[in-house]
Amino acid sequence: MSAASDKNAALLARAIEVCSSREQWSAFSESPSTKIHGEEAPGRGKAAFEAHLNKPFELDQPGSAGRLGGEISPYTMEPLGIDYPGVDPDAVCAAAVQAMRSWQAVDPDRRAMVCIEMLKSLEKRLFENAHATMHTAGQSFMMGFVGSGANALDRGMEAVAYAYKAMTDIPQSALWSRQLGPHRVAFEKRYHFVPRGIALVMCCATFPSWNAYPAIMANLITGNPVVLKPHPNGILPMAIAVRDMRAVLATNGFDPNLVTMAVDTPERPVAGRFLERADVAIIDFTGSQRFGSWLEKNVRDKLLYTETSGVNSIVIESTSNLDGMVDSIAHSLCLFSAQMCTSPQNIHLGGAAIETDQGSIGADDLSALLVERIDRKVETPGQAAGLCGALQSQASVDMLDGLSRRAPEIGGVLREWGGYAHPDFPNARTATPLVIGTDNSAQDVLRTEHFGPASFIIRHRNADEALHRAASTAHEHGAIATHAYSNRHDFLDRAEQAFVEAGASVTFNMTGPIPLNYAAAYSDLHVTGLNPAGNACLTDLSFVCDRFRIVQCRWPEASRAADLQDGT
Amino acid sequence: MSAASDKNAALLARAIEVCSSREQWSAFSESPSTKIHGEEAPGRGKAAFEAHLNKPFELDQPGSAGRLGGEISPYTMEPLGIDYPGVDPDAVCAAAVQAMRSWQAVDPDRRAMVCIEMLKSLEKRLFENAHATMHTAGQSFMMGFVGSGANALDRGMEAVAYAYKAMTDIPQSALWSRQLGPHRVAFEKRYHFVPRGIALVMCCATFPSWNAYPAIMANLITGNPVVLKPHPNGILPMAIAVRDMRAVLATNGFDPNLVTMAVDTPERPVAGRFLERADVAIIDFTGSQRFGSWLEKNVRDKLLYTETSGVNSIVIESTSNLDGMVDSIAHSLCLFSAQMCTSPQNIHLGGAAIETDQGSIGADDLSALLVERIDRKVETPGQAAGLCGALQSQASVDMLDGLSRRAPEIGGVLREWGGYAHPDFPNARTATPLVIGTDNSAQDVLRTEHFGPASFIIRHRNADEALHRAASTAHEHGAIATHAYSNRHDFLDRAEQAFVEAGASVTFNMTGPIPLNYAAAYSDLHVTGLNPAGNACLTDLSFVCDRFRIVQCRWPEASRAADLQDGT
Repeated sequence: MSAASDKNAALLARAIEVCSSREQWSAFSESPSTKIHGEEAPGRGKAAFEAHLNKPFELDQPGSAGRLGGEISPYTMEPLGIDYPGVDPDAVCAAAVQAMRSWQAVDPDRRAMVCIEMLKSLEKRLFENAHATMHTAGQSFMMGFVGSGANALDRGMEAVAYAYKAMTDIPQSALWSRQLGPHRVAFEKRYHFVPRGIALVMCCATFPSWNAYPAIMANLITGNPVVLKPHPNGILPMAIAVRDMRAVLATNGFDPNLVTMAVDTPERPVAGRFLERADVAIIDFTGSQRFGSWLEKNVRDKLLYTETSGVNSIVIESTSNLDGMVDSIAHSLCLFSAQMCTSPQNIHLGGAAIETDQGSIGADDLSALLVERIDRKVETPGQAAGLCGALQSQASVDMLDGLSRRAPEIGGVLREWGGYAHPDFPNARTATPLVIGTDNSAQDVLRTEHFGPASFIIRHRNADEALHRAASTAHEHGAIATHAYSNRHDFLDRAEQAFVEAGASVTFNMTGPIPLNYAAAYSDLHVTGLNPAGNACLTDLSFVCDRFRIVQCRWPEASRAADLQDGT
Repeated sequence: MSAASDKNAALLARAIEVCSSREQWSAFSESPSTKIHGEEAPGRGKAAFEAHLNKPFELDQPGSAGRLGGEISPYTMEPLGIDYPGVDPDAVCAAAVQAMRSWQAVDPDRRAMVCIEMLKSLEKRLFENAHATMHTAGQSFMMGFVGSGANALDRGMEAVAYAYKAMTDIPQSALWSRQLGPHRVAFEKRYHFVPRGIALVMCCATFPSWNAYPAIMANLITGNPVVLKPHPNGILPMAIAVRDMRAVLATNGFDPNLVTMAVDTPERPVAGRFLERADVAIIDFTGSQRFGSWLEKNVRDKLLYTETSGVNSIVIESTSNLDGMVDSIAHSLCLFSAQMCTSPQNIHLGGAAIETDQGSIGADDLSALLVERIDRKVETPGQAAGLCGALQSQASVDMLDGLSRRAPEIGGVLREWGGYAHPDFPNARTATPLVIGTDNSAQDVLRTEHFGPASFIIRHRNADEALHRAASTAHEHGAIATHAYSNRHDFLDRAEQAFVEAGASVTFNMTGPIPLNYAAAYSDLHVTGLNPAGNACLTDLSFVCDRFRIVQCRWPEASRAADLQDGT
């Protein structure tokens, strides 16, 4: 694979470059256009997905224990009918440790090349995987193709670049010499990069590939085998990826057990059996703040990287683009039914009236504008389907029902939620956004994450109170994406300072074609590690550096080469 | 300080370069020669040290609480008579947090320049600090000057380089743009490097500066204020350094409370009061494995970097330089009375007879050679004084007495320990090495660290048994410096593999003018983090990367510059 290697080396070099420049770049295409992928690609992808249904999914990994799986499509509300091999942690971990031993001898360059081959192989399954993501996570096809596809692969590539940088920060060998009086003293040194052990990568239900690919890549390049534990309703997209990565490893002459999978069910969760093992050294967790915090408090002897969730806020002090602001916020409240870790929830209005390019606007009128814009965005079932997708979990329906019932005590419903009729899937579990108006008194509600399309428009006495509340919520309850709108320099400066102190990344005055939720690989840092929304950042040096350690071996120059007897 | 800045920038660039090449380099002189430092430097340094004695040490830091200090010189066995301000953790931490706020606004380049100024300022006190180190740690003057001086400063500079690398891995700002159909979308981004909080740097008694300087520098460059907690009998060298660093900070217009000191006594330890504080975010600990392990198990909410101790082994399979090997080992058993974390303790003989360049030699004869060489190295009081220094703690005397008494059950005394008469300090607490011969049965003794000049020559049936025992001891009980001697390729390869698996760095066939204990800044990695001798490595990327985190701020291009109204 020499030509492929050259190409991959060029990709790696470019990825490292853009990690430093933070400019826009992608190695993958975001467009599902047949002009790029060929006329047959969409149909072939769909057929490949459908071929998985109602069949056992074959995954040739060691020590399988029975068959299980109970995924239900949020679009058809029918079981996918797929079962997967259950996991025997002893067998899988033994195989993973054995794979780690041989992988340890492979140099970082070669590891990176193989990892990039994996990403390119996954790219070939974007159509298939987009359908698999739809029917497990509830994403729309386009989000499954772009966000869970190209963008997730970019994040995998970004992790390859970072992990490679860390692994090549010092050479694998060196010569050290100095003159001591008349004597030259010289040592040859070899630096062994030692992996930590098995990495358990735990995925969330709604956007598994987005954090899984970077975690897998960060672990593999640094030498650690991965056991992927998908969410019980998000197995298929990860199973397709795992099987594919195993094939790439085997094709290139490496042990496929560097990547294995641990499928479980809600009734019989398997994560605990890995957490208690000494050979599991790393946990990469994406999921609820509740379990993430539990891990942070209870996992003692392992490296732990968490990305959980929080209460994302938008602060509105003023705007020089009322229409653009309202459009961006409305879009973000609808997008994938706000089931993203970057979805906004709390919209803090900085006073009874907001200065805009269209004059001063009262809080009621601004709320009405926002509701109208949401209405317009989900006006037709086709629009709603493309934007909102489906609800991954019944829990979001229950949440919406509950909040709706409690609305009178919180404030008042500004927009009632409701399902929309999906044009292709009449049984789909759908929702358009619930919007509740309130003042700042309903603290218990406002300082809790409500997973799904529920948001609050909160009136404050002034913009600084709004800012203070948004920042303290981020600091105490976590936030991954925060926004503020203002056309005042002084306010933006105060907002920047407040959110930096709160440990929450912030975007100002974002309007236009890119969703508020967008985080660009190589440029945007996802999660700060400074608030309860996670302890790690995808991806910075700190995400990769500790995944391996260095053991040094040194000896007097040339003494291991020619001078010694051959002992055999 | 523009000329100084240029010079410091060149030093930083060179330090970063050698961290990658791992070649020999130093920014400081190891020689106390008056040709370098001037005729008056030695006398002036001694006088400066003596001027501290029997006086209050003035340290103008916030919230001092009483005076304390009870250091005793291991050379005179008299109290130094110095008292220091006691610490009020509330006041010191409040001042440190305030200093952190202003320091956070200083860019990494400027921080690095100031840190290098500190190191250069400390260099000017090498003579003074060498005497202070002698009379607290018990080091010989030369070790105090070189090991605790130039070499420790080198390690500080190495940490500056690493921390600077980590802080500049991404730019402080970036422009991201992409074309979306007809639209160019562009964001300006600012990356805020946010410190974690106060760093408590806890020093050991015998070699405080060696880990303190790198920890201080790693923390300062990444934005974190340092509270230095010296060992109750190792205050003076650290107090001199702290006062000096505070002066450099103030002279350069920065808040001196970035570096403060927390002095305590064995009766009223103060570390716990910092450990329980939320504003203390980082612990850098050097000291006993017992307390280090306690910290590793109990410190939950802070970053923790430990360097403790272990049971260092030497494995002898064969040698092509019997004389050199015996000389190096004997030297290392004497050096600073084996009170270094790199001092060997267990010498494993790989069989009843060892092949050498002088023919096969029996275990008894090899042991006798080693004992003779030790005898010769400490033959005169002057030689012994220069090599062994003094015992920092009475605990080492008790340890030697205890082992000597138990020797018959362990095996037998090959060399009895005893004080030597120091030529300059007749009351000095001194020792020449105790050597005990044993077989592999005394596991409880051999798998425990005996801090001070005690070693064991252990007979094994064969070299692989010796290797296995040394490696498993390192793995289970920690090791920082391991050695093996062999002229067989196959054995060296097996040894390399065994020690890499044990997570213990190893040196092969080391002889000549450089002590076995030597670890070169920029080249040798000190502590692997893979065995109980510590969880960190001084210095690699992992030692610095997590000491800060990144909060991102982004906004549409140019929207914060010209387009906005001035809100004031």
